[in-house]
Amino acid sequence: MKIAVLGTGMVGQTIAENLSTAGNEVIMGTRDPSKTVSRTEPGSFGRPSFNDWKKANPNVQVKSYAEAAQQGELIVNATNGTATMQALEESGADNLNGKVILDIANPLDFSKGMPPTLTVCNTDSLGEQVQRKFPGAKVVKGLNTLTAPLMLNPGMLKEEGHHLFIAGNDEDAKQKVTELLKNFGWKEEQIIDLGDITNARGTEQLLPIWIRLMGKLGTPFFNFKIAK
Amino acid sequence: MKIAVLGTGMVGQTIAENLSTAGNEVIMGTRDPSKTVSRTEPGSFGRPSFNDWKKANPNVQVKSYAEAAQQGELIVNATNGTATMQALEESGADNLNGKVILDIANPLDFSKGMPPTLTVCNTDSLGEQVQRKFPGAKVVKGLNTLTAPLMLNPGMLKEEGHHLFIAGNDEDAKQKVTELLKNFGWKEEQIIDLGDITNARGTEQLLPIWIRLMGKLGTPFFNFKIAK
Repeated sequence: MKIAVLGTGMVGQTIAENLSTAGNEVIMGTRDPSKTVSRTEPGSFGRPSFNDWKKANPNVQVKSYAEAAQQGELIVNATNGTATMQALEESGADNLNGKVILDIANPLDFSKGMPPTLTVCNTDSLGEQVQRKFPGAKVVKGLNTLTAPLMLNPGMLKEEGHHLFIAGNDEDAKQKVTELLKNFGWKEEQIIDLGDITNARGTEQLLPIWIRLMGKLGTPFFNFKIAK
Repeated sequence: MKIAVLGTGMVGQTIAENLSTAGNEVIMGTRDPSKTVSRTEPGSFGRPSFNDWKKANPNVQVKSYAEAAQQGELIVNATNGTATMQALEESGADNLNGKVILDIANPLDFSKGMPPTLTVCNTDSLGEQVQRKFPGAKVVKGLNTLTAPLMLNPGMLKEEGHHLFIAGNDEDAKQKVTELLKNFGWKEEQIIDLGDITNARGTEQLLPIWIRLMGKLGTPFFNFKIAK
């Protein structure tokens, strides 16, 4: 499958690498592909530079947002939340029409230091903003409540049966995302479909406590489990 | 111990009953005690009227906010979030000074139907508002992320080891609340101290997904567990 991964940060790299290794044709989207590929400064959290990462993942293509979105049959939005709308506008509505957008981004504003605040919440959400701006796309909010390595390897936690939340207006799109998540190792019973895209308000507002828990626990390797 | 429970709804009743049964002197605070006690209309969710509930709990006193707060050595804020500031103002700063306030309230606005929105969030919280308004009190946010019966009976869920979050500026106050929670049946390892009162932003913003999960699961009997 041809998959566009918008965003070249840790989340984008982690997802692109996984999808490419699994045999998909992955096209990463970025504002300025040649600038992104030439980045030699080390990544955050001890990660390699983008240039080194790209060399280790030669099958992943790096193109403009528009080219990536045009070629992708499915779109993964792994941009920073504050850059999401701009990235999707550069992708172009025509290139998003009719396609599933798995929206992983969180509208976090780190400009005033830690902990960040949300740029939109409570009566609206980034997921809804994306859906309103691109009504022809099928937005599914998901994977935004846990750290990137865990998205693709839910078994790395000792505790089993922790949960993922998805939200979106299109049932078929949510089914497609569910299949993708199952390929990542999630069991169907771990995926809670909250309903339409307004439920992104619920999952995006998990971030304030997620970030505080990361500080408290000293690790990003944890997840929410709904105990019944 | 003399404990003031502000608020006479389901949360207040459930907590007052438990604390009274455990041998505490419980004084419920309400705006108009005689009016509250004379209420004969049935409670929500099939609960008895306040009048019937009071008859079943003769040891629980029902007084004005100010009288309850004056007599209580510890204050439990079980009012509706939208009524909290008014209730605490009627309680009187002098009656709150130096005391621990366990703040269970959530700033939920149900006036526009379900799901409710938050009246304060993201860059502030109800817990912080209370602490700022009553700097002499020691506010501990807690118990606001689960349904009332579960607050007092954590073992009613099949799954063990689910979590409670507390937040507050005063370590001694958090220790006192922790002891109270242990009396309710919580184990120390189930209680996560997030830090100062600004962390109430994290727990109050759990409500949007909590409410959606209640709708999705068809029951309020669940809780968050941090899977590691």
